[in-house]
Amino acid sequence: MSKIAIVIFDKFTDIDLFLMWDLLNRVRVEDWEVKILGENERQVSATGISIATQGIIEEANSSDAVLFVSGQGTRAKMIDKDWLSRFRLNSEKQFIGSICSGSLLLAALGLLEGKMATTYPTTKTALESFGVEVVEKPFVAHGRIATAGGCLAQQYLIGWIIENLADKDWRDLILKSIQPVGEGLFFEDAENLTRLYAPLPKAQTV
Amino acid sequence: MSKIAIVIFDKFTDIDLFLMWDLLNRVRVEDWEVKILGENERQVSATGISIATQGIIEEANSSDAVLFVSGQGTRAKMIDKDWLSRFRLNSEKQFIGSICSGSLLLAALGLLEGKMATTYPTTKTALESFGVEVVEKPFVAHGRIATAGGCLAQQYLIGWIIENLADKDWRDLILKSIQPVGEGLFFEDAENLTRLYAPLPKAQTV
Repeated sequence: MSKIAIVIFDKFTDIDLFLMWDLLNRVRVEDWEVKILGENERQVSATGISIATQGIIEEANSSDAVLFVSGQGTRAKMIDKDWLSRFRLNSEKQFIGSICSGSLLLAALGLLEGKMATTYPTTKTALESFGVEVVEKPFVAHGRIATAGGCLAQQYLIGWIIENLADKDWRDLILKSIQPVGEGLFFEDAENLTRLYAPLPKAQTV
Repeated sequence: MSKIAIVIFDKFTDIDLFLMWDLLNRVRVEDWEVKILGENERQVSATGISIATQGIIEEANSSDAVLFVSGQGTRAKMIDKDWLSRFRLNSEKQFIGSICSGSLLLAALGLLEGKMATTYPTTKTALESFGVEVVEKPFVAHGRIATAGGCLAQQYLIGWIIENLADKDWRDLILKSIQPVGEGLFFEDAENLTRLYAPLPKAQTV
């Protein structure tokens, strides 16, 4: 079974939740579970979209992968000691990743000590203030910890998760499935794409 | 004033709503309004995400741009005569567009007659059944009507909307703002990116 947790908070960036959510929900392997976790029953995005969470943030501690989204809200959460103390993540056993300013939360949790990482351009200085060496790359992985910078770099981050928890074939098909037609995705792919819309195996979320 | 309507329905594809929503909400010009419209107070995505709509679908008829999202739900809507009859769109005055299978709704509304269009690979045959010539391109525009195919082709569609209703500078900056770091977006862009997170001018939605 693979349990994947996406951690959100108020003032998250919409696309940084929903691109990863949508990609992860295209996997059709048995007992693949994706959950959106938050401290509240609902969290509100930076643009005012209210989303029901599907579990409390402590569920991240028993997940196989934990992904932190980004947004203005990271600046409050990175100094919210109560919130941070609820995470007991283990980078020996769990895949842990962030998109854009979600890297600030990995740093605040002490997960980027002595590591290079990437982030959104507007949060480079804040990430450096944690003593992290910030590099101008879309995706940086060290063992089971990875950071990605720039919304569309979620493709690298989620590709890495799917490759590790499902397999390379699912990664390739799912990343292909969102490309522009004629630029990575073609009409001849139609039959293969239907694998992504098959009825859900048991334990699929929502 | 620019009013932009995004039309959703049950079983929509998450990323095909939230990528365009997020991009359109990065524009910071006066009286720029983006609204998510539906027939119900809430609509539920293909993965089970429940979203509050911000207006009824008739509001599309007085908007400057009307965008149809995609998803399994398009198959029900393209034959829902009551739903279709509520739209009174004018392609002389309004910019009208679709992503992926949203093209089926444009066709059902009679907006693609005699035109070439694009769509998602799995809906090519269905779109052809409306007598539309389907071409393997990410983006096809004829005057004020445009179709895009493949989720990430929303960049072409929304770029076209922003260029026409705001300007090319906003289009370029907003499309740049979601690229992967080191691949189109760079740390030196940080200062310019802060324009996208400025306080909202009046009439910004939600």
